[in-house]
Amino acid sequence: MNPKQLVGEKATTYIKDGMIVGLGTGSTAYFAIMKIGELVKNGLSIKGVPTSKATEELAISLNIPLLAIEDVVKIDVTIDGADEFDANKNLTKGGGAALLREKIIASVTDFYVIIADAAKGSQFLGSFAVPVEVTAFGKEITIAQLKALGCIPKLRYKEGELLLTDNQNYIVDCKFEKIENPAQLSAQMNALPGVVENGLFAGMANVIISEDGKGSTITID
Amino acid sequence: MNPKQLVGEKATTYIKDGMIVGLGTGSTAYFAIMKIGELVKNGLSIKGVPTSKATEELAISLNIPLLAIEDVVKIDVTIDGADEFDANKNLTKGGGAALLREKIIASVTDFYVIIADAAKGSQFLGSFAVPVEVTAFGKEITIAQLKALGCIPKLRYKEGELLLTDNQNYIVDCKFEKIENPAQLSAQMNALPGVVENGLFAGMANVIISEDGKGSTITID
Repeated sequence: MNPKQLVGEKATTYIKDGMIVGLGTGSTAYFAIMKIGELVKNGLSIKGVPTSKATEELAISLNIPLLAIEDVVKIDVTIDGADEFDANKNLTKGGGAALLREKIIASVTDFYVIIADAAKGSQFLGSFAVPVEVTAFGKEITIAQLKALGCIPKLRYKEGELLLTDNQNYIVDCKFEKIENPAQLSAQMNALPGVVENGLFAGMANVIISEDGKGSTITID
Repeated sequence: MNPKQLVGEKATTYIKDGMIVGLGTGSTAYFAIMKIGELVKNGLSIKGVPTSKATEELAISLNIPLLAIEDVVKIDVTIDGADEFDANKNLTKGGGAALLREKIIASVTDFYVIIADAAKGSQFLGSFAVPVEVTAFGKEITIAQLKALGCIPKLRYKEGELLLTDNQNYIVDCKFEKIENPAQLSAQMNALPGVVENGLFAGMANVIISEDGKGSTITID
């Protein structure tokens, strides 16, 4: 079995009948959602909360019942990917610019399952630039303040234009060397007035599932 | 002299030739800006950074040279109002829904002068609800999370419609009883993914100028 499929399907073992399930985005989450669709077809009763438009469309095509974000108070299990993870299950997310939506969903999730290539794990975060969503007003000031926290900040462009998020903000990719204390750095970034949210998910993941390169899953919990 | 005028004009004594000056918004700041206009007419050379469109128009009408926010790295002195202040010069701001813009400007200000009625001061913040700017996506979740911090949250409406900020977000007015640690509460609110920024300005003001009811100014520094 393809490693992404192996890992994605393994993640679905955390889902029980009657649960509200956060549905992640990306190539590994895809296989989790496909498996959930199969389970639903076979009688599993759950309600899904999609983290993106693409995931919403996939879930609808599989007849997975969905809840609107307005109607969500608590999510039992969310299965999502990550761009990088460290030895303490801290994550960097937001390569796809949807970090705000993903973090809001993670913040009301009881049990947060991350599925990722083993290659994305290391002792400390820092290989992947931390995406930070910033307001348009004062973005030059915010970028200077992010730089003062020790990174090389870079406004994200897409097809020659500044990338605008779903919330009409910009993304600044902040390349740090080695992030020893992600919780502290996340708080420092969020304390900057122009920062809407950042892509460090510190202390949120309950379990990380990856593959060992030989066809078996590795579970960090 | 009208107390607001007395206080507003007193604040301008912190301005020196060659400075970059943040120009606040509101009925007391109005008098400070009028005085700055007079000083500029008499030869003072400064550059202003307006905290609102209304202030920008007033400054232009007075021939006060302005800098665009894109060109600002550091502001020498900012003069602005507050909705409430405590014994340690912590502030609540944002009654006018411009807290994000005001906080970005405050965050790059070397010397932050607050002008306010003496009646707005007390031992602890809490009489005034703390305005919090939240993203439209997931606002129900964010409101529940704000409530869990111990307040009564209320979405702000204007003329029967949800008020939209300049940044296309909503304002939630959070009524706490007594705010003993504004810096901590501010960090807790900013840690919520859907919170863009909050109206607690903790440890930012250098001096607060008010009037004693008898025609003299009171300076807390």
